[in-house]
Amino acid sequence: MKLTARKIAEALNGTVEGNAEIVVSSLSKIEEGKPGTLSFLANPKYTSHIYHTQASIVIVNKDFVATEKINATLIRVGDPYSAFADLLEMYQQSKGKPSGISVKAAIDPTAVVGKDVYIGDFVSVGEYAVIGDGCFLYPNTAVGRHCKVGENTTLYAGVKVYDDCIIGNKCTLHAGVVIGADGFGFAPQQNKNYRKVPQIGNVVIEDNVEIGANTCIDRATLGSTRIRKGAIIDNLVQIAHNVEIGENTAVAAQTGISGSTRIGSHCVLAGQTGFAGHLNIADGTIVTAQSGVGRNIKTENTVYEGSPAFKHKDFQKSYIHFRRLNDLVNRVNELENKLKKLTTQ
Amino acid sequence: MKLTARKIAEALNGTVEGNAEIVVSSLSKIEEGKPGTLSFLANPKYTSHIYHTQASIVIVNKDFVATEKINATLIRVGDPYSAFADLLEMYQQSKGKPSGISVKAAIDPTAVVGKDVYIGDFVSVGEYAVIGDGCFLYPNTAVGRHCKVGENTTLYAGVKVYDDCIIGNKCTLHAGVVIGADGFGFAPQQNKNYRKVPQIGNVVIEDNVEIGANTCIDRATLGSTRIRKGAIIDNLVQIAHNVEIGENTAVAAQTGISGSTRIGSHCVLAGQTGFAGHLNIADGTIVTAQSGVGRNIKTENTVYEGSPAFKHKDFQKSYIHFRRLNDLVNRVNELENKLKKLTTQ
Amino acid sequence: MKLTARKIAEALNGTVEGNAEIVVSSLSKIEEGKPGTLSFLANPKYTSHIYHTQASIVIVNKDFVATEKINATLIRVGDPYSAFADLLEMYQQSKGKPSGISVKAAIDPTAVVGKDVYIGDFVSVGEYAVIGDGCFLYPNTAVGRHCKVGENTTLYAGVKVYDDCIIGNKCTLHAGVVIGADGFGFAPQQNKNYRKVPQIGNVVIEDNVEIGANTCIDRATLGSTRIRKGAIIDNLVQIAHNVEIGENTAVAAQTGISGSTRIGSHCVLAGQTGFAGHLNIADGTIVTAQSGVGRNIKTENTVYEGSPAFKHKDFQKSYIHFRRLNDLVNRVNELENKLKKLTTQ
Repeated sequence: MKLTARKIAEALNGTVEGNAEIVVSSLSKIEEGKPGTLSFLANPKYTSHIYHTQASIVIVNKDFVATEKINATLIRVGDPYSAFADLLEMYQQSKGKPSGISVKAAIDPTAVVGKDVYIGDFVSVGEYAVIGDGCFLYPNTAVGRHCKVGENTTLYAGVKVYDDCIIGNKCTLHAGVVIGADGFGFAPQQNKNYRKVPQIGNVVIEDNVEIGANTCIDRATLGSTRIRKGAIIDNLVQIAHNVEIGENTAVAAQTGISGSTRIGSHCVLAGQTGFAGHLNIADGTIVTAQSGVGRNIKTENTVYEGSPAFKHKDFQKSYIHFRRLNDLVNRVNELENKLKKLTTQ
Repeated sequence: MKLTARKIAEALNGTVEGNAEIVVSSLSKIEEGKPGTLSFLANPKYTSHIYHTQASIVIVNKDFVATEKINATLIRVGDPYSAFADLLEMYQQSKGKPSGISVKAAIDPTAVVGKDVYIGDFVSVGEYAVIGDGCFLYPNTAVGRHCKVGENTTLYAGVKVYDDCIIGNKCTLHAGVVIGADGFGFAPQQNKNYRKVPQIGNVVIEDNVEIGANTCIDRATLGSTRIRKGAIIDNLVQIAHNVEIGENTAVAAQTGISGSTRIGSHCVLAGQTGFAGHLNIADGTIVTAQSGVGRNIKTENTVYEGSPAFKHKDFQKSYIHFRRLNDLVNRVNELENKLKKLTTQ
Repeated sequence: MKLTARKIAEALNGTVEGNAEIVVSSLSKIEEGKPGTLSFLANPKYTSHIYHTQASIVIVNKDFVATEKINATLIRVGDPYSAFADLLEMYQQSKGKPSGISVKAAIDPTAVVGKDVYIGDFVSVGEYAVIGDGCFLYPNTAVGRHCKVGENTTLYAGVKVYDDCIIGNKCTLHAGVVIGADGFGFAPQQNKNYRKVPQIGNVVIEDNVEIGANTCIDRATLGSTRIRKGAIIDNLVQIAHNVEIGENTAVAAQTGISGSTRIGSHCVLAGQTGFAGHLNIADGTIVTAQSGVGRNIKTENTVYEGSPAFKHKDFQKSYIHFRRLNDLVNRVNELENKLKKLTTQ
């Protein structure tokens, strides 16, 4: 991909300032810009880098005012970050994608595979599974019996989908994801053994969901574990049986959600958070990293922190005092001494 | 599977109340019951649903007394939850299982494979490995050299077992499980490099163990990392080299246990708990979610909480005060002010 | 491997005390020693075991002084632990390694594979990938397009490497590792949807790096996520896009490091620790288990604890008081009562 500043400005509906014929072939961060690359300035924290960057072209806001000399050619646009994301997409598409169905795959004769599908080496697709048009199944992926994968969905290498699970359109499941393993359901017996409770439900993933590498989403005991449309889930996340994740909710890495808990829409669960089972978490809830939620959260758009978690602001007040707890103890010692003196005088 | 209430009552040794000829073909949760499904009522919290459920049949306790009209046919039994688990098992068995050995598997000629074994596509079984009768090895599973897998054990898709490891009878290893990777053993050198300590032991998993998706159990430096019979381990758990997990102990998701620690029998380790290395944890210990255990626990059947963890009840007292720490600081401020006034009067 | 005490002493440059012709065929821990095995005593905590061990040979420090009768033959050396590690390596090498390229692998014709490489069953190697001399690729491993794997590197079963990633020489990636999945980069939109930001960078792993089972290292948005030489990373670790891990840094299991954070050299991150994004962590930092680091750490060689983390010693003081917080509250109650009496007298 070699493009001039002029061509790029046309594509982004921007204006060129400097050498319009300069050519770039890749993209860079502004602080690591090299000749022949294009960068962008969206976050004011990085403004100082524009005066020193080696990048040939920098995309800036149309209102940007330089306070020193800039060597790079500038392209001025209304929203530099969005314009840069457009370029990232153009770049990614220019790299080409794999295609065709490998002769080394194992597709059951009863399975239905749509048009323009890529199926890599050593992929297995089980009986009566349906793979929609435009899907990408990378090597070593295993799709079980009676599964349904929607259109334009990507399963990266080594994804495992158990029988009967349903994945929507335009989803991305990263390498090593496991969909539909048995929920952790065991009934304690009087002899202290556990009896396994069969997990006969499934997992339903709606459209436009992204799931990070090695994340596990367990099948329901009955009914469905459900990930609603637009949810984004990071790596190594654990989602237990019968959980529901709301629309456009973001779940950061290594978070764990126990059975039957319902997370609302457009929540943000930071990294390594945990949730007890059978909870209801209101829409728009934010939970800070490493926090553990043990109770329902009923008010929308609140922030929780701590393990067990409570209101973020209250936690922060408590934690400031926790850090100085030794001082507080010394003050109480002092008070006791003074009072003793006073009463024994 | 289509069955009448009469047939089901016979199988469960129960009595029918209502239409004995009504037919159901699947199972449902009572709050999501649909016509043609069978549900159950075991937890009193869900009693209100029985008056509105669309389920055709509900299994209830023989002593259940209705306070409103119920549309569903009832089947009265001694233990509704256990009866329902029986039905879940019947349902699951009715779905059929895969069978046969795929021509697309790679089984070393020196390996020994028992009777009635399913080996899926792209499974590899290494030299001198032994796979017992009635095992299921789903696609893309890799069993190393000299491994031994007992009878009626299931390895779901993409399980990886390193050389020399031993897995018992009637075990279930979910997709992506890794058994026998090297323990994290490195000797710091004077130049700040690490020297790797070879890990020449193995992993031994006894009978009736269940291991969740993407869980990792490392091989011992010497000897064996050992999971005792009846233990149940959830997803994304880390079990380090030379650890021992006792009989019928339950380990919830994302828990991590450091090297050489010995967890007793019938313990319950909640989600995201952590254990330092070289510890002894007494039988029957319960550790609450996200807690971190740094010391031996010598008394049986105690509950621990916190990071670092101490007795659950003490933690809870402390945490109540932690939540109100700002109030306590204000009270100390007040005391100081009053005392100052008193002494300067 | 059958060896006499005499032969072993020669190899280790040690001296025999006892039966020089006694033969051993494997290695054992001193507390589990059996006849025919060789053990070692390096940690003084285990000294008592030497008087009862069944091991035929024990390696001890040349200055070791017995206080009771010992049955085992002793071999005295300058550094018993290092000598034992040598023997572990000899033992491991004696077991043999797999070799050759499986006809059941799928290697793209444009890929370049070096000499003396093992490629197992159902391994896929993508277009233009380069696999260096002496590499081991175990079954079901998937190496993407344009990847480069250095010499003498081992990828255990089911490792997945996305396109364009680079792995150095003498690295070990354990089963289920995922290298180069997309970073978790999404731009929130006004309609509360997320727009995915393409991740066009890669992952670069330098020489002598070890990565534990099911660990995930995400590709950079732009540029590279980088693991510097000699770093050792345990199982189930999450390393986000554009992170950098310094030389010889140790990262214990289930740790998570958020995007663009830079961890210095020879740091030790204990298990289940977490790091916010865009941080700089100084060389030699130690972070205790389950701690969460939310700020830059600028001073080298300090120890941090807590969530959020602060200086280890300060945390420990605060935590001692936290454990006794109920007592402190009682003392404040008492003070208030006394003061009230005093002022109302």
